[in-house]
Amino acid sequence: MKRRILAIMLGACVTVFVRPVRAEEPIQPIAPAKVTNPALVELGKKLYFDPRLSKSGAISCNSCHNLSLAGTDNLKMSIGDHWQPDPINTPTVLNSRLNLAQFWDGRAKDLKAQAGGPMVNPVEMASTHELVVNVVQSIPAYATEFKGAFGSDGVDIDRVTAAIAAFEETLVTPNSRFDKWLEGDKSALTKTELEGYALFKDSGCVACHNGPGVGGNSFQKMGVVEPYKTSNPAQGRVAVTGDDADRFNFKVPMLRNVELTYPYFHDGEAATLEQAVETMGKLQLGRTFTEEENAKIVAFLKTLTGDQPQIVLPHLPPSTKKTPQPQPFG
Amino acid sequence: MKRRILAIMLGACVTVFVRPVRAEEPIQPIAPAKVTNPALVELGKKLYFDPRLSKSGAISCNSCHNLSLAGTDNLKMSIGDHWQPDPINTPTVLNSRLNLAQFWDGRAKDLKAQAGGPMVNPVEMASTHELVVNVVQSIPAYATEFKGAFGSDGVDIDRVTAAIAAFEETLVTPNSRFDKWLEGDKSALTKTELEGYALFKDSGCVACHNGPGVGGNSFQKMGVVEPYKTSNPAQGRVAVTGDDADRFNFKVPMLRNVELTYPYFHDGEAATLEQAVETMGKLQLGRTFTEEENAKIVAFLKTLTGDQPQIVLPHLPPSTKKTPQPQPFG
Ligand code: HEC
Ligand code: HEC
Ligand code: HEC
Ligand code: HEC
Ligand SMILES: [Ca+2]
Ligand SMILES: [Ca+2]
Ligand SMILES: [Ca+2]
Ligand SMILES: [Mg+2]
Repeated sequence: MKRRILAIMLGACVTVFVRPVRAEEPIQPIAPAKVTNPALVELGKKLYFDPRLSKSGAISCNSCHNLSLAGTDNLKMSIGDHWQPDPINTPTVLNSRLNLAQFWDGRAKDLKAQAGGPMVNPVEMASTHELVVNVVQSIPAYATEFKGAFGSDGVDIDRVTAAIAAFEETLVTPNSRFDKWLEGDKSALTKTELEGYALFKDSGCVACHNGPGVGGNSFQKMGVVEPYKTSNPAQGRVAVTGDDADRFNFKVPMLRNVELTYPYFHDGEAATLEQAVETMGKLQLGRTFTEEENAKIVAFLKTLTGDQPQIVLPHLPPSTKKTPQPQPFG
Repeated sequence: MKRRILAIMLGACVTVFVRPVRAEEPIQPIAPAKVTNPALVELGKKLYFDPRLSKSGAISCNSCHNLSLAGTDNLKMSIGDHWQPDPINTPTVLNSRLNLAQFWDGRAKDLKAQAGGPMVNPVEMASTHELVVNVVQSIPAYATEFKGAFGSDGVDIDRVTAAIAAFEETLVTPNSRFDKWLEGDKSALTKTELEGYALFKDSGCVACHNGPGVGGNSFQKMGVVEPYKTSNPAQGRVAVTGDDADRFNFKVPMLRNVELTYPYFHDGEAATLEQAVETMGKLQLGRTFTEEENAKIVAFLKTLTGDQPQIVLPHLPPSTKKTPQPQPFG
């Protein structure tokens, strides 16, 4: 009897966990989030939504990486402190854990290293790490949560960024129709979408856009066959390595949820997926797609939209008399 | 048998619904939200969170009435389009359904009439009703939701504002400790808090702050005994009635969740509850509270914090090629 139950349980496990993934494909499914420290994730979520991490008291991570808008803001250039335009298009935070490094030029090695940047960027949140820590530790409910999440008292910038990164680790989008197809559900994609996928593989897009993120795992030149024309001053990876060969190399963006993360490219100049696909074909592969081919690739790309994270809006603990005042108009 | 079940059921109903409310008190408990058209509320929630209702594509109702911050932004003056300061402190949307009219001067008769205002206010969302409608109806998923919510095709400003108002109707905060005490739970308040409540009644605060909202149901002069000194140009109710007797009359703010809606007064000049209570005592009642009395009143006011609405962040449907582009820097 016991054995039979065990057998049934194992059977169930096999059905759930060992799905027939198409191992030969250059794209792999997105794994769901594993939460090991829920208190840390919950704290990170609060900090992610807290505008008091900015000098003005009005800009949070969620202002530019809006989780109602697939982790971005759908603007060509984001709006930072005092309405300054951010100089480069804002990538999504969804699945950003899969990136080989963070930022278009990869200058931050991981999410924790990245999270300290925007707070002190004068065109973004315009604060200082000292001010961020002073704000957070002036709020007793935060201090208590830090203790619960880290096991000891103390608020510092290391812990603030670790908590935010832990939250971002959970922002994954599994169960796209494409992933269902990868996992063996033949009815998940239409004929057109499959033809688009075949074109995506056969014409060479997968050389750069592959892996679970469909990108995010290498730096590549923007404009391989033909140069990319833009007035945006960003020079890409060379800013990090100093190596002239890296000039105009950018981290290949992941194409997960790309239907939702318009406009496209580091300068945000491509308003539609059709335009982005056309440009990629010409500049990266020297190939001009017919309208029909372009439409098929776009149809395929739209199958990469996964389940968006379900976020219950956090209730932020109130400031106290010790909390430094926001300076929106200072 | 059937009768007995009925009796038990009735018994249960009585326990749940007919609670021993202290009828003689000048403050009544907040009733939980009743949702009659969930599709309309869900649509309204999306619109409330949608920054595309602004010209810039970056400002939503939630930017200033942040539901992570008790429906306000905790700034003296909010930040509107192009970082313009809003000229008057932003009230919370929580329980705003209980207001006799909306805005500090009551110029909108209800939530629906109010909701059309900020979209077209040049220092707030800086859009036009035409543009808002064009944006919304260019998005097929919205069009479908409008049909589901209203029973027929069509997007117009009347429906947009009706949906937002329906969502706002659900933003109530029942179950504060004070309400539990009103409903008969004697252990819900401490001795200090009860003494604060006694002072609040005996010294005359309840003359203006009463009813379920603890305010929100009349316009009163700011500075009854002594004039209020401020550099803020707002003149209050006179702007609506043209009657000089209404000069410097403001809608009495509700004190529900007042612990969370700092800073205080129409000019946002009182940073703490202690300051606001002190000013009210002197200017409205000609009374100077001792430090201890002030602390007791503040302790009472903090018992008015209720359950904050649990909001699952909506996922907004993507724009299309027909959607007018946001103009953040135009
Ligand atoms: C004012 C807009 C703005 C704010 C606020 C902002 N970001 Fe960003 N974020 C950007 C832009 C722009 C980039 C790209 C910058 C670059 O690559 O040089 C970026 C990049 C990132 C990346 C890298 C993604 C990738 O694919 O490389 C992550 C992760 C991220 N931000 C998280 C955050 C967090 C966490 C916060 C809050 C602490 C935050 N951002 C606040 C605009 C913003
Ligand atoms: C040689 C490498 C390479 C190849 C091949 C390539 N891409 Fe890209 N792709 C990139 C890089 C690098 C970027 C970022 C360019 C930038 O923003 O300046 C990019 C950006 C994109 C974007 C915009 C993503 C965003 O969020 O901004 C799309 C869509 C895209 N590629 C699709 C394709 C398709 C479809 C193909 C095949 C037709 C393709 N790519 C081929 C490297 C490549
Ligand atoms: C840029 C800031 C800003 C934005 C955006 C904004 N509001 Fe407001 N809201 C205010 C301010 C300031 C007031 C008070 C104005 C007055 O009384 O003259 C106010 C008043 C209100 C009130 C009246 C509350 C009361 O107690 O009288 C409601 C309800 C409200 N807003 C809802 C909304 C909705 C719905 C939206 C989006 C469609 C919105 N607001 C967008 C700043 C903003
Ligand atoms: C004569 C009417 C009146 C009396 C009496 C009165 N208030 Fe007020 N109260 C108001 C008005 C009107 C305002 C708004 C004033 C403004 O913003 O300019 C207000 C504002 C407040 C605020 C700030 C709320 C906010 O969100 O900005 C608090 C707190 C407050 N009152 C508490 C009290 C207390 C405590 C007492 C008794 C000591 C009291 N009030 C007596 C009319 C009154
Ligand atoms: Ca983009
Ligand atoms: Ca009314
Ligand atoms: Ca206030
Ligand atoms: Mg307004």
